[in-house]
Amino acid sequence: MDFKIPDSGDIVEAAKRIAPYIHRTPVLSSRLINEYLDAEVYFKCENFQRAGAFKMRGATNAILTLSPDEIQHGVATHSSGNHAAALSLAARNIGVKAYIVMPSNSSKVKVDAVQQYGGIITFCQPTVEAREEMLVKVISETQATEIHPYNNVRIIAGQATATKELIEQTERLDVIMAPVGGGGLLSGTALSAAYYSPGTTVIAAEPANADDAWRSFHSGSIQPVSPLHTIADGLRTSLGSITFPIIRQYVNEIITVEESLIIDAMRLIWTRMKIIVEPSSAVPLAAIIKQKSSFKGQRIGIILSGGNVDLDHLPWNNH
Amino acid sequence: MDFKIPDSGDIVEAAKRIAPYIHRTPVLSSRLINEYLDAEVYFKCENFQRAGAFKMRGATNAILTLSPDEIQHGVATHSSGNHAAALSLAARNIGVKAYIVMPSNSSKVKVDAVQQYGGIITFCQPTVEAREEMLVKVISETQATEIHPYNNVRIIAGQATATKELIEQTERLDVIMAPVGGGGLLSGTALSAAYYSPGTTVIAAEPANADDAWRSFHSGSIQPVSPLHTIADGLRTSLGSITFPIIRQYVNEIITVEESLIIDAMRLIWTRMKIIVEPSSAVPLAAIIKQKSSFKGQRIGIILSGGNVDLDHLPWNNH
Repeated sequence: MDFKIPDSGDIVEAAKRIAPYIHRTPVLSSRLINEYLDAEVYFKCENFQRAGAFKMRGATNAILTLSPDEIQHGVATHSSGNHAAALSLAARNIGVKAYIVMPSNSSKVKVDAVQQYGGIITFCQPTVEAREEMLVKVISETQATEIHPYNNVRIIAGQATATKELIEQTERLDVIMAPVGGGGLLSGTALSAAYYSPGTTVIAAEPANADDAWRSFHSGSIQPVSPLHTIADGLRTSLGSITFPIIRQYVNEIITVEESLIIDAMRLIWTRMKIIVEPSSAVPLAAIIKQKSSFKGQRIGIILSGGNVDLDHLPWNNH
Repeated sequence: MDFKIPDSGDIVEAAKRIAPYIHRTPVLSSRLINEYLDAEVYFKCENFQRAGAFKMRGATNAILTLSPDEIQHGVATHSSGNHAAALSLAARNIGVKAYIVMPSNSSKVKVDAVQQYGGIITFCQPTVEAREEMLVKVISETQATEIHPYNNVRIIAGQATATKELIEQTERLDVIMAPVGGGGLLSGTALSAAYYSPGTTVIAAEPANADDAWRSFHSGSIQPVSPLHTIADGLRTSLGSITFPIIRQYVNEIITVEESLIIDAMRLIWTRMKIIVEPSSAVPLAAIIKQKSSFKGQRIGIILSGGNVDLDHLPWNNH
């Protein structure tokens, strides 16, 4: 490993650094969901975070830790999701430019979100190669600094602050759960649990249709993301060279869940809690429902990753 | 008037009485909505209330103030909406039966909500006459006590507790707004504003397609509800003999809003605040958007009345 895993002090510093720019989001619970599960679930509501997702934490921490030289020409990334909007807002908050490479088939909702926060969009063909080529081109032209969405220790330290807060806001938790895509949130979650609540089990949840993290975790080497479709659009990426070893060391278990369970869990949160979460956020609750008996009587914290959904295309209307 | 308008002491007592059975709901605000309106809006989130609406306050207060004789055979009402579910849950909480007369064409979502809370449903033909006839029949058979959804001073005192809390939870408000249907919420809102925040203006908001309250307010006599359609399904009733005089005396203004504005306001709340509100809840925000310049710079409290929506039939998918 040619990187330093964020230690407790790094996460404490990140939390202080980003505090003026983020919300300390509430922790909610639902009597009806608890009765249904025969467990106590504490939902950390990053759907209420600025720019609508936990990504604001990492993006803000990454930008604030760049040197004046690194930041003077702005930041850049390729992303069609929450990282793009969060990086745009985090950059605007400190007065620098954010260059965002997005595939030409990005939904209007996602393009609007980036533009609303002042991100400067360059469109490219919708392939991984085209995205990476275009990002290289944009960076060479602008001299902006690339901020990777998850394979970056500053991003991980920022995402870790959500679980640090959750632990501060709740009594002892038996289990903390997060969804896993590229692993930035999960790495940070696992590190904060290890530092601030040792003894708490960390369980990741992943769509069965994009089970690369499960396969990587069990095979011991990073597996490519499955090409299959999942409605959990935030989780369609594979682990990185930094997130994977942290997850191998600090995460106890990964549970995969089927699409129909994710939709049911998402709808349960919407209906019972009256809050809007995106499909990725519902994956941990789906995992509890799938393995209900093993969670019975437990006190479980869940990071609700975000709330950015396209209200014109809800999953239950497509089925 | 052959009734006594709830005084400040009645509302204070109601608040104490119902406290063990209801949530003290949070007050939320949105930076983006405030920037858009150039005003400060404080949303009292009764969508997070038990049974999903402010109705739980009045129903609980009404049941808890019945004498042992009045309560021994349970309570009854005809309602296809939030009052039916709230009365069922409030009755179950103290161990008495709730008999609910519902039209045979009630949506599955609403029937499920009542059944979930243990309400005993009798279906009837979907006309006002059939509902009232069936309720008389049910009451004669069960000897249950009727709890009217709004034209009842105990209901009004219960609904008033939402605004009492809002005033406690915020700094001085220039304006407090609530939607108006039968006027139970609006009466209670206006009374609490008068008692606990004198000087605050009370403004009601009503769908233009069901503008009976506006017509009653300005003509000085109760006008029948318009037969026209509104998506704000909680507001399709006309004022009652108790709510009307309170509203005439304590409400400053009623603003009517068109359907498209209600849908836009509802979507704005969902998108920006990541919370689920029903169409009726969005009517006050729609009124602010309609008369934006007159609210500029104001500190405005809004009662978000509830969050019970049919996720299979959202208004923006029907247009």
